[in-house]
Amino acid sequence: MALQAAVERARFAAEARISAELAGVDLPVARAMLYAVRGGKGLRAFLVAESARLHGIGDAIAPAAAIECIHGYSLVHDDMPCMDNDALRRGQPTVHVKWDEVTAVLVGDALQSLGFELVSQADGDAVNVLALSRGLARAAGVRGMVGGQAMDIAAESAAGPPALTQVEALQAGKTGALILWSATAGAVLSGADAKPLECFGDALGRAFQIWDDVLDVEGDIATLGKAIGKDDGAGKATFVSLLGLDEAKRRACDLVTEACDALAVYGEDAEMMRDLARYVIARKK
Amino acid sequence: MALQAAVERARFAAEARISAELAGVDLPVARAMLYAVRGGKGLRAFLVAESARLHGIGDAIAPAAAIECIHGYSLVHDDMPCMDNDALRRGQPTVHVKWDEVTAVLVGDALQSLGFELVSQADGDAVNVLALSRGLARAAGVRGMVGGQAMDIAAESAAGPPALTQVEALQAGKTGALILWSATAGAVLSGADAKPLECFGDALGRAFQIWDDVLDVEGDIATLGKAIGKDDGAGKATFVSLLGLDEAKRRACDLVTEACDALAVYGEDAEMMRDLARYVIARKK
Repeated sequence: MALQAAVERARFAAEARISAELAGVDLPVARAMLYAVRGGKGLRAFLVAESARLHGIGDAIAPAAAIECIHGYSLVHDDMPCMDNDALRRGQPTVHVKWDEVTAVLVGDALQSLGFELVSQADGDAVNVLALSRGLARAAGVRGMVGGQAMDIAAESAAGPPALTQVEALQAGKTGALILWSATAGAVLSGADAKPLECFGDALGRAFQIWDDVLDVEGDIATLGKAIGKDDGAGKATFVSLLGLDEAKRRACDLVTEACDALAVYGEDAEMMRDLARYVIARKK
Repeated sequence: MALQAAVERARFAAEARISAELAGVDLPVARAMLYAVRGGKGLRAFLVAESARLHGIGDAIAPAAAIECIHGYSLVHDDMPCMDNDALRRGQPTVHVKWDEVTAVLVGDALQSLGFELVSQADGDAVNVLALSRGLARAAGVRGMVGGQAMDIAAESAAGPPALTQVEALQAGKTGALILWSATAGAVLSGADAKPLECFGDALGRAFQIWDDVLDVEGDIATLGKAIGKDDGAGKATFVSLLGLDEAKRRACDLVTEACDALAVYGEDAEMMRDLARYVIARKK
């Protein structure tokens, strides 16, 4: 299927670029960095590549590699014993298990820096590249991903389960911000109106989060390569626990329709983006 | 003394800017971020401000705040139990002691992102701002600060003590890279030749590292606000253990002379920079 091939292509190109960046660094931590970014879904790299293509940008490998570094760093730190304490990621031992906690801290830290180094190497007018870099910093930071993560942790120690609006807010930061950045990267890089891709990315991110919760309930360990029912076991409120399984699925479907409709301005050219949105609620892992 | 007032001014301006950036974020992690950057020496912020002034740039508060965020994040992560396990920093409880390990991870991560957000807000031509941002990413990452930190940790578990060249290489990454970036920021931002400030920053960084080791031997806990003789106790090789106290001091003095001489092209205008270099080997903490 064309989508799958395109996602794989974007993922391989991003991994190859990260590997090339690290080629001259003869330190165990550099090998652990590469280990941490390999074997992901490549969803974010694909979004960058595809939104760039929609805006006539041929080579968006540097920003695609950048977002995989940022996403990869967040997983390494999230998996640490003081955070989610996960031993498996993508079916492989997590960095702190394969190496140690010190390595996990440093790998995450260095991957974040590498993400910003890579985004600064994007092709395009310096004003636009700078806007892209600023947007990435905001999406990754306390107003984006880290803020969402902090809200998530605060919710766990709160007296009652969080309301739906709180779960939406924390998910918007935790996973939504990087997906939104990726989807809009091409528009930002070419200085074009980013609004359609913003609507697309926002709806896509929300569908993705809901579907993650659906999979957490329905999934099975062999397919996912991570512990199942973990969110539920830890007493975390999820979209499924708040909405019920059927309503959660219905919302995810509506969001995918919303995402696809947002791309009307791109016509048929955006069909692969729409395929991705549809895939998000068809995936089994 | 004029130098002290200028350093304080740069530090306060950087802290105020970071505080302003975080003002709208109503999360405990934002308060912990501010806590982590407060009360530092302000050396790096001053270098940015002063090198900017030497190049006719009036406002360099954003990049000065950026480097204090990056430096601050590194301290928070370095102090964690799996790293140096320090309970005190600048005479105050470290972030993981005052809050917890999760907060320390997130504070460090978010401060790094904020650093890159702030550097992207620097005044100047976008091409130069982008070069500054790229340089910061490289100085902070696996080829700079994190790489030095990783070398330092590897040296601890090595069979014998590291050679002088190894200590120099790890220190060049661990503290040298950010100092060098700070010293050259003004030249990079104005698109000028950065070579003189590069030589200055390199020599200054090396003098600074040697003097830190000297202070570690000579200091006293009340003045420093951190545990004394810790490096020696952990069996770490330092410039003092490798060179002896007298030779270490002599080298630091030579490096300060080298740093001052490197600024010849700026004439009298760079006297405050030279004062700073001289202060590095006069300081008691």
